[in-house]
Amino acid sequence: MVFTIEELIGNAQTDASSGELAPVWSQFHEAVEKAGRILLSTHENPDGDGIGSQLAICEHFKRMGKEVRILNGSQIPPVYEFLDPNGWIEIYDRDRDVDWLKGCDLAVVFDLGDFRRLLKVGEDLLEHNIELAGIDHHPQMGYAAVNGTPYNFSLIDFSAPSTGTLVWQYLRSFRQEKITLSMADALYTALVTDTGSFKYDNTDARAHLMAVDLMRIGVHPYLIHMRVYEQRTHPQVKLLGTLIKHIEYSADGRVAWCVLTEERFKLAQADLEDLEGFSEFIRTIKGVQIAAVISEVSPNKTRVSMRSKGSLPINDVAEKMGGGGHPFAAGISTERPWADVLAELIPLLEAKAAQFNEAEGI
Amino acid sequence: MVFTIEELIGNAQTDASSGELAPVWSQFHEAVEKAGRILLSTHENPDGDGIGSQLAICEHFKRMGKEVRILNGSQIPPVYEFLDPNGWIEIYDRDRDVDWLKGCDLAVVFDLGDFRRLLKVGEDLLEHNIELAGIDHHPQMGYAAVNGTPYNFSLIDFSAPSTGTLVWQYLRSFRQEKITLSMADALYTALVTDTGSFKYDNTDARAHLMAVDLMRIGVHPYLIHMRVYEQRTHPQVKLLGTLIKHIEYSADGRVAWCVLTEERFKLAQADLEDLEGFSEFIRTIKGVQIAAVISEVSPNKTRVSMRSKGSLPINDVAEKMGGGGHPFAAGISTERPWADVLAELIPLLEAKAAQFNEAEGI
Repeated sequence: MVFTIEELIGNAQTDASSGELAPVWSQFHEAVEKAGRILLSTHENPDGDGIGSQLAICEHFKRMGKEVRILNGSQIPPVYEFLDPNGWIEIYDRDRDVDWLKGCDLAVVFDLGDFRRLLKVGEDLLEHNIELAGIDHHPQMGYAAVNGTPYNFSLIDFSAPSTGTLVWQYLRSFRQEKITLSMADALYTALVTDTGSFKYDNTDARAHLMAVDLMRIGVHPYLIHMRVYEQRTHPQVKLLGTLIKHIEYSADGRVAWCVLTEERFKLAQADLEDLEGFSEFIRTIKGVQIAAVISEVSPNKTRVSMRSKGSLPINDVAEKMGGGGHPFAAGISTERPWADVLAELIPLLEAKAAQFNEAEGI
Repeated sequence: MVFTIEELIGNAQTDASSGELAPVWSQFHEAVEKAGRILLSTHENPDGDGIGSQLAICEHFKRMGKEVRILNGSQIPPVYEFLDPNGWIEIYDRDRDVDWLKGCDLAVVFDLGDFRRLLKVGEDLLEHNIELAGIDHHPQMGYAAVNGTPYNFSLIDFSAPSTGTLVWQYLRSFRQEKITLSMADALYTALVTDTGSFKYDNTDARAHLMAVDLMRIGVHPYLIHMRVYEQRTHPQVKLLGTLIKHIEYSADGRVAWCVLTEERFKLAQADLEDLEGFSEFIRTIKGVQIAAVISEVSPNKTRVSMRSKGSLPINDVAEKMGGGGHPFAAGISTERPWADVLAELIPLLEAKAAQFNEAEGI
């Protein structure tokens, strides 16, 4: 009756992806083998998943002897710079780079969801008919909904916990050599940032098995965590203090929000990029079901970030006001003054909160 | 050349514990089978690991038909109450409970480290010679160092990521029925609270495989996370605002601290228990290597909580001032006014920071 890990794993295997990739990955791999020059890119305002995925593949392609460049539409957040000690990630400059782009045999783009989020890189790839491979775990919205898929190799798996997970499976299947530690660090970063360190519900058996594999290569979980999550700047800390001071509540504390005016940003010497995690912070308060941060971008421009604890979907509210998102994480970006937005938003959220069932919620 | 999860798992198995428990577990299980009345307990100020472990075992023993009670030395934090909907956890009351204790055939204690942390429960178990089993992943300090082990069944594995992991292995090995969802939730809570959601360096292959197994039973990671980490009280939030306002820096920002006087606690309507995670918060600031929170318990009593980002051990500083702890998480509790403590502590931390090697640290 003694239980063995072997027995457990037998079950895990049934639950998880078998690790075998769809046949299109073999076709993609053939295209990679033939290609001389390859361009890599990811969405604007890139995150840990896009950046980790492209850096791991970049190293792999370089070691295969390919001429490869990462050309992104916008800057990477400073917290991810540790993953790129060689400065492989560049910002696309049409004047400088379009001739190089024209000579590409293949472009691989990561974690996009909407092809338009490649910005000018995407426009130029289409313009010059470069062969395209898309590695992603998002439903294909925006561009694909109107024009159909832009990809010659559509390497998309909605069930994957991160785009990095697909890259990991590809490397484990098609790379001759072992995954290096720098590749493993990049892929682990992709995995933990997209699963919220294994806490979001996209975390599955595959996510945990990937972690085991990467840790065996030498990844230290805390070291990655420290690099990504323990680098708060002083303006970010000050802005969090401002937020805490100005949180407002209604609907018996089920709705909580904070308005960050231009003046409040200035006082903390902070800007919109320093808001990372702020609506999530408000959600961590006991009793709060819906959290919102309303930011004044300019006198006639407002952004709203909303989070729900999981009982009350809020993307319908976001959509009603011209925004969108997931059921429990949504946002609005609108050309209206913050006070107008607030006056419309809070009653909508209060109406939501009225649907909250004490017995079911937390 | 296609990679399969099976192949990966073959490796994971070599790294992880085989899942086979030491022979003493079989002896323990025999004692359990024979026992009619069993007492369960854990350390004072219990954490998610101790509570989750004892609740999982309690349900298991109850389903085996045992007469079982959980008698702890001190209250469980409110965030863990969701794990105990039946109110199984009681606070030991010597007058009321000692006669029941005397009739026990076995006591199982969890996550102790030092047997003295059972408080009166421990004294009475020894006094009345109750057969003792200790399930733990800590080195056995304090009581055991002076008296030798108090346990008839020493079920201790330093390499386990949590005490709950050992309980999980025991249940997977010796329980006839499947682990129930309520047991799985308790064990998952034990695992994530002791590994910091898989980010501390005690996270190993076994931790991830345990997560896979518990999720298969039906555990929702985010639901547990929300229950444990998204229940900040208003005083806690206000006190965090106070902390942010009063953070001080020295040694080029490598040392950062905050003094929380009795007055500051009062202003936030908060108390010492609301400090959970505060020194960790200061550590999240970019450039901070050592973080400290100095709390005034009373005019002549001070507590210090310290965290290091991992380059500079600080438990030697704690020990010098009458405290102790782990290299990167240590504390001091002393009968001195806070200003005295601060005047001694900060220069010691600054001297530490002077040893920081920019090239190696983060």
